[in-house]
Amino acid sequence: MDKIIGITELALRDAHQSLIATRLGIDDMTDICDELDNAGYWSIECWGGATYDSCIRYLNEDPWERLRTFKKLMPKTPLQMLLRGQNLLGYRHYQDEVVERFVDKSAENGMDVYRLFDALNDLRNLETSVKAVRKAGKHAQGTICYTVSPVHTIDLFVDQARRLEDMGVDSICIKDMAALIKPQAAFDLVTGIKAACPKLRLHLHAHATTGVTLVSLMKAVEAGVDCVDTAVSSMSLGPGHNPTESFMEMLEGTGYTTGVDLGTVLKVKKYFAKTLSRYKEFQSAVTGVETEIFKSQIPGGMLSNMESQLKQQGAGDRLDDVMAEIPIVRKDTGYVPLVTPSSQIVGTQAVLNVLMGRYKVLTGEFSDLMLGYYGDSPTDKNPEIVAMAQNHAKKAPITCRPGDLLDPEWDKLKADALVLSGNNGSDEDILTYAMFPQVAPKFFEKRHEGPLNLGKDPVSGATEAEITAAHQGNITGPITYAVTLSGQKHKVVVEPYKK
Amino acid sequence: MDKIIGITELALRDAHQSLIATRLGIDDMTDICDELDNAGYWSIECWGGATYDSCIRYLNEDPWERLRTFKKLMPKTPLQMLLRGQNLLGYRHYQDEVVERFVDKSAENGMDVYRLFDALNDLRNLETSVKAVRKAGKHAQGTICYTVSPVHTIDLFVDQARRLEDMGVDSICIKDMAALIKPQAAFDLVTGIKAACPKLRLHLHAHATTGVTLVSLMKAVEAGVDCVDTAVSSMSLGPGHNPTESFMEMLEGTGYTTGVDLGTVLKVKKYFAKTLSRYKEFQSAVTGVETEIFKSQIPGGMLSNMESQLKQQGAGDRLDDVMAEIPIVRKDTGYVPLVTPSSQIVGTQAVLNVLMGRYKVLTGEFSDLMLGYYGDSPTDKNPEIVAMAQNHAKKAPITCRPGDLLDPEWDKLKADALVLSGNNGSDEDILTYAMFPQVAPKFFEKRHEGPLNLGKDPVSGATEAEITAAHQGNITGPITYAVTLSGQKHKVVVEPYKK
Repeated sequence: MDKIIGITELALRDAHQSLIATRLGIDDMTDICDELDNAGYWSIECWGGATYDSCIRYLNEDPWERLRTFKKLMPKTPLQMLLRGQNLLGYRHYQDEVVERFVDKSAENGMDVYRLFDALNDLRNLETSVKAVRKAGKHAQGTICYTVSPVHTIDLFVDQARRLEDMGVDSICIKDMAALIKPQAAFDLVTGIKAACPKLRLHLHAHATTGVTLVSLMKAVEAGVDCVDTAVSSMSLGPGHNPTESFMEMLEGTGYTTGVDLGTVLKVKKYFAKTLSRYKEFQSAVTGVETEIFKSQIPGGMLSNMESQLKQQGAGDRLDDVMAEIPIVRKDTGYVPLVTPSSQIVGTQAVLNVLMGRYKVLTGEFSDLMLGYYGDSPTDKNPEIVAMAQNHAKKAPITCRPGDLLDPEWDKLKADALVLSGNNGSDEDILTYAMFPQVAPKFFEKRHEGPLNLGKDPVSGATEAEITAAHQGNITGPITYAVTLSGQKHKVVVEPYKK
Repeated sequence: MDKIIGITELALRDAHQSLIATRLGIDDMTDICDELDNAGYWSIECWGGATYDSCIRYLNEDPWERLRTFKKLMPKTPLQMLLRGQNLLGYRHYQDEVVERFVDKSAENGMDVYRLFDALNDLRNLETSVKAVRKAGKHAQGTICYTVSPVHTIDLFVDQARRLEDMGVDSICIKDMAALIKPQAAFDLVTGIKAACPKLRLHLHAHATTGVTLVSLMKAVEAGVDCVDTAVSSMSLGPGHNPTESFMEMLEGTGYTTGVDLGTVLKVKKYFAKTLSRYKEFQSAVTGVETEIFKSQIPGGMLSNMESQLKQQGAGDRLDDVMAEIPIVRKDTGYVPLVTPSSQIVGTQAVLNVLMGRYKVLTGEFSDLMLGYYGDSPTDKNPEIVAMAQNHAKKAPITCRPGDLLDPEWDKLKADALVLSGNNGSDEDILTYAMFPQVAPKFFEKRHEGPLNLGKDPVSGATEAEITAAHQGNITGPITYAVTLSGQKHKVVVEPYKK
């Protein structure tokens, strides 16, 4: 009997987050839910991460309604989400009650498996959410953010796994958001964690960006991993993930299998191949592999952000300098893993260092990171930069759990949310406001207009304005056309429209 | 000490053959030759396959001049070519003297390593070329075309390797042109061949199309393979090959290394990223992975050919039927591997079977294949279809080496070639005529005009006609533009120009 390796299918969350900037609308998902539910995946990741933000910011879609829709259409397969521990899906720490209420409400609306992570791997930032998930009777998956540094030894990660087990998690996930985990490291890490925590399921989440991680999945399987994350092939690769079908096919003859139905997956593939072609304007510029990430450790999505930051400053040619600066800044932070929000904080500071001189200007977020307000770093920070941060931010460093500094805030958030026009009075709406206080008011007002679908066909059915806008995105300089109009030939120059 | 795994870099031959229909012109290669020569590859594949045909058909470029240029610019690294045994680079069998003269002339012009293969794995079709390469003092690599069928066991392939060793080859290559070799199969096959032929170097050439073969390279390395074929990342993946940088990076900590300089490879990467963007119009439609190839076994390039054959017949919707027909036709042939020319022969017959009824019409090439005129099949053919072929072609089946039926033809080829306008009287020109009798006359006449470079920038520097043509390739239906002409706004509809 072959050993079953579970698959978490990422098409509905991380795959479109990585490939088309999280723009996939609910209309482009519902028709395939039945097939997804029948394929035999261990779980379907479909919520959390950046999808909540994208729903209210771009898609005029209630994320809670999306979750309920998924639960209705996929009743058999566990639904999975990515949750940033004490940050929830926002960008600051929340007081414990807010975290507990978020977990309760999402469980009530249909969430089953919570992948809980902290960008700094400071497990104190996971305590409240792990407890809340367990109290709700759901699956709490404790996460190790994988990174490479002189202090991140196998022993350090294995110790983190042990501490997660002590916290009471149901399973452990190695999260490799930048595709850094190489085959031998995957083998050693899985071997180490399985030896230390033999009773816990071990999952491996890896992006595909560097091109090596399907090999790492193979080595992880050989070392005893229980489940891997993949995305259907038509929604895979580039800054996304390894293709589900390739993972399944590669196991032939190895003594491992997935229990997933390949015929069903191929239907899902066809569906998303068609769907994705409607989101071309949001597609990531990275489509092949990028091994230079092994040096900078910057996840794919972050790279394009930094490029546009630099261009806005008229310094589009300094990207290589920034890439070289990132490892220096990261070392000063005590080798934090680079993942939301630490990747943005370190990346932005590196850009400032290159443009203004090293640490001549500090961002507030970078100061907070240096002063412990995001939690503990993996190792000692550069004391000189800590002093600069203290001076800049006019506050003292902390060593306690950041959440402990927060006063109860639920009632205040509730009061502020309830007065907003369009707020429906639910706890769900209060949570939306709590996490996205700038965006939520506009969303509440426009929600009744219903979800937007941004995936339009640029040829048929689009308005002139939409076509014009789409084409502006495609041309970078003046193009000369020969256009025949009422029988007369004209030379016509078309160029991007500048307001 | 880590074991060194050699790398054959494919950028200059199979990579652009697979990704941009073999259109890369010499002008877009010379500037990077110095870096390629300094990287430390075991060899650089740069000639043969479809490049000879493409040179004279599309690029107005003398393939022999290309070879001499490579030798001059890359004096340190062995140059490698792909040669279809008794077929040379053409599409029929040549009499032994022609084969010998081709090998002599290519050796004289700078070729070092000859990868010699026969589409049916009939080793009699390699005898003459292996002998000629050894006589010329060059490296003869005997090839096993990898395929999957009930008769293609590990034992069968290992036996083929033994027979290649008996023929006197310097090394063996497993050639997986359709990306069919899965990790366990790669491990078992390499283990088997290394046990049977421990003194011979073993190379593995695999495409990336199904997404699994980088894992197979890893397993092949673990089983003792000596060299693998990869392509620099910016010229990799899709119907092409695994990225060189990913292969190198994935070996970290495994006890294997490549001896190739990564910094140099990254320079090559940047160069080709830029270059490739100038050949967009030739780019393969396949960019992700396609695991359905495991069923049809049709190599990537072949798929688009068949699609266009079907569309020409107004049967674009029958591709799935053809895909299902291919394994049936292939079984009737005695499970021939599918690679040039057998892939085209089997593919075209499958198209005819679907459109006209099974075996209602036979092509001449398919009849020849069934009657042994391409060589022996791996196992027994369907005798009913052999009888049909005999009836159709009005000739008897043969069992001898096909080359033995051919009368000396060099003098006739020479006489025919020398009278052509523009022929320079060299043996090289006679060989060009011998392999491409239709195309060579036109090429000889226009050769003095010099190489064409098809990689034009569609925005700057292109003529109006070129821009119009390029844009016709991009739009599939009418597009409505708002165009302002002399201050007045017009609604303009642009659609593909139909002659």
